[in-house]
Amino acid sequence: MYSEKVPEAIDLSHHLSEVSKARAISPLKGLQKYMTKPGLITMAGGTPSPEYFPFSTVSGETLVTESFPLTTQSSSSFSWFWKLFGTGAGKKEKTTTFTINKWPAHTGDLNLATALQYSPATGLAALQKIIQEFSEKVYQPGYKNFTTLIDAGNTDGWGRAALTLLNQGDGVLCSEWTYPSALAGIRPWGVKTVPIAMDGQGMRSDSLRETLASWNEAERGFKRPHVMYIIPVGQNPTGATMEAQRKKEIYDICVEFDVIIVEDDPYYFLQQSPYVPKDQRTDEDAFSSTSAEEKFIAQLAPSFLKFDYQGRVIRLDTFSKTVAPGCRLGWYTCNPQFAERLERAGETSTAAPCGFSQVMVASLLLNWHYEGYIRWLRGLRLQYEQRRDAFIDALADAFQLDMGIEINGHRKGSLVYHASLKPERQFSEKSSMRYSKPLFSFVPPSSGMFVWLKLNLEEHPSYTAVGYKALEFKLWTALAEHGILFGFGSMFSASAVTDETEGDGHFRISFSSTGHDDMKKAASTFALVLREFMKDQ
Amino acid sequence: MYSEKVPEAIDLSHHLSEVSKARAISPLKGLQKYMTKPGLITMAGGTPSPEYFPFSTVSGETLVTESFPLTTQSSSSFSWFWKLFGTGAGKKEKTTTFTINKWPAHTGDLNLATALQYSPATGLAALQKIIQEFSEKVYQPGYKNFTTLIDAGNTDGWGRAALTLLNQGDGVLCSEWTYPSALAGIRPWGVKTVPIAMDGQGMRSDSLRETLASWNEAERGFKRPHVMYIIPVGQNPTGATMEAQRKKEIYDICVEFDVIIVEDDPYYFLQQSPYVPKDQRTDEDAFSSTSAEEKFIAQLAPSFLKFDYQGRVIRLDTFSKTVAPGCRLGWYTCNPQFAERLERAGETSTAAPCGFSQVMVASLLLNWHYEGYIRWLRGLRLQYEQRRDAFIDALADAFQLDMGIEINGHRKGSLVYHASLKPERQFSEKSSMRYSKPLFSFVPPSSGMFVWLKLNLEEHPSYTAVGYKALEFKLWTALAEHGILFGFGSMFSASAVTDETEGDGHFRISFSSTGHDDMKKAASTFALVLREFMKDQ
Repeated sequence: MYSEKVPEAIDLSHHLSEVSKARAISPLKGLQKYMTKPGLITMAGGTPSPEYFPFSTVSGETLVTESFPLTTQSSSSFSWFWKLFGTGAGKKEKTTTFTINKWPAHTGDLNLATALQYSPATGLAALQKIIQEFSEKVYQPGYKNFTTLIDAGNTDGWGRAALTLLNQGDGVLCSEWTYPSALAGIRPWGVKTVPIAMDGQGMRSDSLRETLASWNEAERGFKRPHVMYIIPVGQNPTGATMEAQRKKEIYDICVEFDVIIVEDDPYYFLQQSPYVPKDQRTDEDAFSSTSAEEKFIAQLAPSFLKFDYQGRVIRLDTFSKTVAPGCRLGWYTCNPQFAERLERAGETSTAAPCGFSQVMVASLLLNWHYEGYIRWLRGLRLQYEQRRDAFIDALADAFQLDMGIEINGHRKGSLVYHASLKPERQFSEKSSMRYSKPLFSFVPPSSGMFVWLKLNLEEHPSYTAVGYKALEFKLWTALAEHGILFGFGSMFSASAVTDETEGDGHFRISFSSTGHDDMKKAASTFALVLREFMKDQ
Repeated sequence: MYSEKVPEAIDLSHHLSEVSKARAISPLKGLQKYMTKPGLITMAGGTPSPEYFPFSTVSGETLVTESFPLTTQSSSSFSWFWKLFGTGAGKKEKTTTFTINKWPAHTGDLNLATALQYSPATGLAALQKIIQEFSEKVYQPGYKNFTTLIDAGNTDGWGRAALTLLNQGDGVLCSEWTYPSALAGIRPWGVKTVPIAMDGQGMRSDSLRETLASWNEAERGFKRPHVMYIIPVGQNPTGATMEAQRKKEIYDICVEFDVIIVEDDPYYFLQQSPYVPKDQRTDEDAFSSTSAEEKFIAQLAPSFLKFDYQGRVIRLDTFSKTVAPGCRLGWYTCNPQFAERLERAGETSTAAPCGFSQVMVASLLLNWHYEGYIRWLRGLRLQYEQRRDAFIDALADAFQLDMGIEINGHRKGSLVYHASLKPERQFSEKSSMRYSKPLFSFVPPSSGMFVWLKLNLEEHPSYTAVGYKALEFKLWTALAEHGILFGFGSMFSASAVTDETEGDGHFRISFSSTGHDDMKKAASTFALVLREFMKDQ
């Protein structure tokens, strides 16, 4: 597929951790040359006879790829809301069915005798083939000999990658706001986080260069980091998406300072058109609704892989957001040198991802074909866009929203919506209380599942006395008491937050699974609670 | 259930590794008090809407619990061989079917909306309940507040337990012959193995005491070990099973020297009656064929849990040998202090075991009920016993077998079968070549899937020149060239094996999935190859 001119991965073995280097070579290595012998009698492994697998068949009834429309159909009154939210037990869906038998009818058929048996950490051959082709077609890595390796989802993927690359006391470059579970996975190993400032596209390249170029080991107490953890699309929690130019800049800096990029990209296919206020919204959508899959792919922000001519990107893909989290299935795309070590790390943890899941997801994707899966993803993308719009619409109903361009901080360059309390309808003794600044603001996310709210608590009576952290928690608790659970902002900080830390409070609000009425209730309750909260001593 | 007199687990927190202690508390901890609020609107997590799970239903067609008989039926000529081996695509099996819908028809029903969603590392509540009850009924832990925690099988189970208990440079007590993947999982972390001598019941208590009592840290270079890894039933590779008395002795020593026992017990339900040569075999079987499930359980060697009055046993159970390895599902039974840390370790690796697998296995076990699952296990046990017998019968056909009691070494006290070449039928120039000692010997295993062969290569022409390791490899290769793959013995040694190491070669031969004809062919090919091998310079 790739021409002669496309480079191969360079030697990056100096990045392997002590633990990774100490892992044994594949235990199957010595057997491989005999495994293909015709009529081979294998009495080497502890494999149960598939006779004794109690599952004779497993079946799946699955949605068709066209289950979700490609246009918002806003003109047809609120029918799309029904499609979007009117579901549950009563809904009639169009489905197709597949069945996997224990014994294959034809050589190469998916079958339970293989899928439910022990397998190498590379998983089912059929699934391996699907993900390899998918990565090649969609991400178009910039070097020839990239490889893909199945894993048990991005938590497993990052966990294994981190321990393959990092020694105790090493530092990891990450965005100043980031996914707390990724940090929880490495901190117990004595790995330090090195937060890099962000703007409206996520991690800033100038801050990255500055951090790396000015690294003072004596002052910092540890070596210049050689690993980056980044969520470049629908950044968690900010929702920022990094475009090609910024990715190229960051990649080049990583080449210069010899940094490995771990690209955690669960929200890649949930990329969304810019939010348009309800009264200005049309059927038009930045993502073409009729074009073929190639055009859709071309519209998405590229993966770091596309710029990777050295093999220094470890990309993490997952089926959690595109099929279901319970699949516990995802894959690496990276150079073969890292893939081999990641496979060894898998052998002594998950062994291989679950066979039920592999066979279910492989069947789904084989039935759908590549084109069908892309069609599914296009429908899914729009569903989340509409959910985002529905939640922001609900905020617009509950608050007064004013637009502006952010000129500094981690949202620099973004179109920001500033929210103020609406005038109270009923007169009361405090109804005249107004604040000079909006009480919170947010940037509509460009991908993913979250609205990241920046609170403005400066005018709270206790702000000076207790600081923002205590107020963020107090407001979070007040909302929880009113039956609304938002994500608590401080937990997404890559730096430690103490009572003395200056700053603003934040909430991460997920619009991914809340019904329309609940979204409206959440927004109006938020207004109610916030109004009371601001008066509270 | 437990009386007031049954003790609770003691504080064993000093056993937690630095990494384990550094893990964050549960991220859900702060939310729990609000989670049960009626009408709660949760916008905290990144959970996709189940609307978008493409699976509307999944179904399983499963074998009935009586699929395999409880008696050998040796009298009815070879009909049991047909039942045992005459299977594959053409076989008609008795099955029942279950279906799991996306949306539950009744509260508490298993459903895909929950099973395929993100879940806490404790997994599905229904499965949690099943395994807790199972551990209580079958293993009867000696303390009150034991807990169970789902994992992704024993490789994941041991991996997490090891990193929860062990720091770099620590030692682990293990049997002198043991499962190599368990060691491969800990060695990269700089953990040392401390092999303990074995006899016909597995690890020797006198050797264990001797090792611990005489521990000299300065000489050994590391602290007295405080963790034991042990496979007490159908020991891998030797097939030994440890009875109650020995387990009690080892447990008491572990109390005395403050050692945590990790009991890896995949073969617990494959316990087998003693091997009886074919011509003396009757329908009688040490395991009662008609008694109720309680009697069957009572006949099994007890778990270390039964003697555990302090909570120092971490038992690992798996569905790999009793349902299928591809489930990647198992569970811990241990004290709540360790369980909490193991759960945290799960959150940043597998997250939770695969939802497809959880819902499939939970459905199977809910349909079968406890009694049905025990019935299934009783049938399965006998199947492996018959496979073991069929393979040893094949060896008896291919070799001359002589019985004896082993008086020393790692099989001490066992009934051993010594195998010699049968006289060659056709005269040839070398047909008179005889050896003064049998060429190999084995103890019929009392559980599990393996026959552990001890080779006797002393009379090989090159023995003195090249040593046993080279000869073991040479013979293994000759067999592989003839299309027979055995497990290579040296890889099961807990000590490093070098060219200079003295000893005997070994093979581990699995009888778990090889057909009857292939077993016979393997035995006769082994005789043929061994005959040529012994003449070879």
